[in-house]
Amino acid sequence: MLSTMQDVPLLVSRILRHGMTIHAKSRVVTWTGAEPQRRTYAETGERTAQLAAALRDELGVTEGDRVATLMWNNGEHLEAYFAIPSMGAVLHTLNLRLPPEQLAWIINHAEDKVILVNGSLLPLLAPLLPGLKTVRHIVVVGPGDTSLLDGAEPAVHSYEDLLQGRPTDYDWPELDERSAAAMCYTSGTTGDPKGVVYSHRSIFLHCLQVNTAESMGLTDEDTCLPVVPMFHVNAWGLPHSAFMCGINLLMPDRFLQPAPLAEMIEAERPTYAAAVPTIWQGLLAELEANPRDVSSLQSVTIGGSACPPALMKAFEERHGIKVVQAWGMTETSPLGSVAHPPSGLTPDEAWPYRITQGRFPCLVEARLIGPDGDVKPWDGTSAGELEVRGPWIAGAYYGGPGGAELRPEDKFSPDGWLRTGDVGVITPDGYLTLTDRAKDVIKSGGEWISSVELENQLMGHPAVAEAAVVAVPDEKWGERPLATVVLKEGTTGVGYQELREFLSGRVARWQLPERWALIESVPKTSVGKFDKKVLRRQYAEGALDVTLLD
Amino acid sequence: MLSTMQDVPLLVSRILRHGMTIHAKSRVVTWTGAEPQRRTYAETGERTAQLAAALRDELGVTEGDRVATLMWNNGEHLEAYFAIPSMGAVLHTLNLRLPPEQLAWIINHAEDKVILVNGSLLPLLAPLLPGLKTVRHIVVVGPGDTSLLDGAEPAVHSYEDLLQGRPTDYDWPELDERSAAAMCYTSGTTGDPKGVVYSHRSIFLHCLQVNTAESMGLTDEDTCLPVVPMFHVNAWGLPHSAFMCGINLLMPDRFLQPAPLAEMIEAERPTYAAAVPTIWQGLLAELEANPRDVSSLQSVTIGGSACPPALMKAFEERHGIKVVQAWGMTETSPLGSVAHPPSGLTPDEAWPYRITQGRFPCLVEARLIGPDGDVKPWDGTSAGELEVRGPWIAGAYYGGPGGAELRPEDKFSPDGWLRTGDVGVITPDGYLTLTDRAKDVIKSGGEWISSVELENQLMGHPAVAEAAVVAVPDEKWGERPLATVVLKEGTTGVGYQELREFLSGRVARWQLPERWALIESVPKTSVGKFDKKVLRRQYAEGALDVTLLD
Repeated sequence: MLSTMQDVPLLVSRILRHGMTIHAKSRVVTWTGAEPQRRTYAETGERTAQLAAALRDELGVTEGDRVATLMWNNGEHLEAYFAIPSMGAVLHTLNLRLPPEQLAWIINHAEDKVILVNGSLLPLLAPLLPGLKTVRHIVVVGPGDTSLLDGAEPAVHSYEDLLQGRPTDYDWPELDERSAAAMCYTSGTTGDPKGVVYSHRSIFLHCLQVNTAESMGLTDEDTCLPVVPMFHVNAWGLPHSAFMCGINLLMPDRFLQPAPLAEMIEAERPTYAAAVPTIWQGLLAELEANPRDVSSLQSVTIGGSACPPALMKAFEERHGIKVVQAWGMTETSPLGSVAHPPSGLTPDEAWPYRITQGRFPCLVEARLIGPDGDVKPWDGTSAGELEVRGPWIAGAYYGGPGGAELRPEDKFSPDGWLRTGDVGVITPDGYLTLTDRAKDVIKSGGEWISSVELENQLMGHPAVAEAAVVAVPDEKWGERPLATVVLKEGTTGVGYQELREFLSGRVARWQLPERWALIESVPKTSVGKFDKKVLRRQYAEGALDVTLLD
Repeated sequence: MLSTMQDVPLLVSRILRHGMTIHAKSRVVTWTGAEPQRRTYAETGERTAQLAAALRDELGVTEGDRVATLMWNNGEHLEAYFAIPSMGAVLHTLNLRLPPEQLAWIINHAEDKVILVNGSLLPLLAPLLPGLKTVRHIVVVGPGDTSLLDGAEPAVHSYEDLLQGRPTDYDWPELDERSAAAMCYTSGTTGDPKGVVYSHRSIFLHCLQVNTAESMGLTDEDTCLPVVPMFHVNAWGLPHSAFMCGINLLMPDRFLQPAPLAEMIEAERPTYAAAVPTIWQGLLAELEANPRDVSSLQSVTIGGSACPPALMKAFEERHGIKVVQAWGMTETSPLGSVAHPPSGLTPDEAWPYRITQGRFPCLVEARLIGPDGDVKPWDGTSAGELEVRGPWIAGAYYGGPGGAELRPEDKFSPDGWLRTGDVGVITPDGYLTLTDRAKDVIKSGGEWISSVELENQLMGHPAVAEAAVVAVPDEKWGERPLATVVLKEGTTGVGYQELREFLSGRVARWQLPERWALIESVPKTSVGKFDKKVLRRQYAEGALDVTLLD
């Protein structure tokens, strides 16, 4: 039986129109280091229409074309966020922190036709130009050394010149809500980057959920400081969500160091902010050294990586700022879980919930898959790889898997769920705690052993400087842990038996390693993480001096 | 270009699963007059699965079948709200306040197969049974005089007996999100009732919006008292929204009189409530007479008809309860507009916004259409008929228009917008004020004259007991107002000229009526409203003694 409801697609242009009319007076303030740039949502909407007209009429952008941005968080990037999807093109946000060769690879893979670039980022873009195969236009936003583009093959334009004099309204097309609106590449540690393509539908539903109290609960009485970059998973959805709910925006542009962040918070008084833990760590230290009035901030969302509990406590106790942890990834738009505690608890009761990755908002479904493909219960102890499903979660990558190393089944289950690559547990009331990356767990007799847990425990022994635990093949159990240990300088007389004794009170008996090796130092990746691939290879090649305990 | 997002339909079953897992401990409390009935969301979810199994396995309900409810707001009605749509059948809520013959007409028109009925409502249902053509099963919920059903043709079942022993989970089907989930008939003043069929998609999107701060901003820290009946536009979406956000529910069942309402508020301490103005009027009077502690209530939504500002003030000043006005109709699911003031205003500045019908939430688009079909500006003074568009707004009626009197073009524009039949103005910042029903405005020279405004002004004259203004044909202007006046008893010597003088300082000159008639009394409908059809007929037949002023 059919419903009698109107068939109205969920489009980014609807968010835009809503924001610029119902929340016409809400403000977009961009920090400039001098006098901030101030625009209303109505003005932003008019400039958005001008940008779309320029892209269509001057640069020949048509539906489906990829238009990239290499930009900081600012008012013009916000205009691009609305203009490009609303006109039917695809917003491709470029991560300016990637190595240049990856950036070029991504631009070519996405077949970007236009790049909007902040003038301050021309030194990053200019050297890439000779290697770009599809880019026809460079649009320079704000001041910068445009001489760097002299002799470039793509045509070079000034953003403001392009907008100048164009009509301030645009007849946004009625698109299919499942068509592409934006894309973002993950910078995976293995293989080539992988493109995630968001639809109008996924962005719209994600924004609606972000605006509910289960997630961020944004309101037009608030001012949001998105420190999380707009080149990183759509700044967690905040720019689009803002136009839906009317929250004011304070854009930090390139001023992401602790001192200017503290200064803009004092001056513009945001009530809400979002960033990765390192930003907050830096801000906390800055405020200790140079106190500022940051009392406007009521709550902040921390995501991107797990937040140290001490950091959460410090913000709350010293500054009265409530820290809410959230988990997600490029493939999840990124809203995956938010650590709001259950209602009605005392602060002490709530604390254990708040340091988890949180619970799943409506439209994110989750399950834990054990080593043998079995679905694990939500009992707070059974570990499994987290798989998620929902309308804003990727079911594939752009153009197929991103490299020879990746098979589709590594990332997506046969029934279409995303394999997150994270291992954890879920409590009966739905709180997720992630403990390991799937590639770092040891599959032993149908159960998982956490290498990270074993390492942390081992490193608690006074004689141990570093410890890395990797899976090695075992005839009986499938895999078993190999413990590689670096002793502190000058340590003598500490045997494997003693270390195993030490562990045995701290982890389950069946998790205790039989295989042990002393090493000089743990091999590390370029960013300083344990490089376990190297250890596994050394073990396979017999290059480690392994002792087998009973 | 296609997105890489998962294609996950928006289904009521997803709301159910979310509520019963993530918000497993949230509570559904049903007032009984004695010890309240208490269940968790988890228990409610399990009973929902049992109900669906019973409907499928015992009563033969299949996808698309209409299952009606004739029930109060209670835990079992909530179970029906989730079980029926989730299994792919269509929840048809029956308005127990309708005249019996309309109820029978509606049941036959919808071709209901099953009726779930509260035992206390059997005296209403039993007499209808001989006239029902499609109903095969009656399921009696709660205590009641089932002997009233003796000899009934449909099979009679006990709700609890049906659920007993059935499995507490159900493999909910993956339906098309555009398929029918629920239906509700409008009790229009003209013609037969008209069926509105909500889809899974429309319910889902509506719920997401209800849960944002632009609308109700519900959270799991709150407890909601939905006084608005679940047989009336899905209780404004609150039951479904509750499972999405985890807000606790306090169900009033049949105890809708002021005294038990005050009692349950004091006992169960809801923080939020929703009802039509008359309920609040009654509660206010009750609290004056019999004070109760209602301090738990922080905010209430009032809709259904315009709320008297004095009532809003009284609740705020005497009880500290914030009243938020909202507008909608059966055809709009019903969220159409909510009167949250713009942010940053003082209470005095906010007040004029709060007594409007409010502003449109994201996904409700609105326009005003003037008498000549022209779109009127949002300038706060240009009046037009309100037309709305959005994914939870009706674009047709079930089975076509509901009677000979109604042509589709009376209710829907050629481009698919809903014609609300309400006339009003919208301010530049998007606040709607409704002034008239479209059928009561006078179309004069391309502008509209409000008959209600003229009547209200005329009734301000000390000699006037009642006044009704209707449109009559005019060669030059199309239509002009005819003022019919009932003078107060014993009044003499008041002429039409004097009344027109009185009006001339109060309305625009071109709106002043030329045609006047004294009448004995204004004809009224059965519910006491002015029956203007009669006046127009009397005028057309020359039955009124009309004086024409220059």
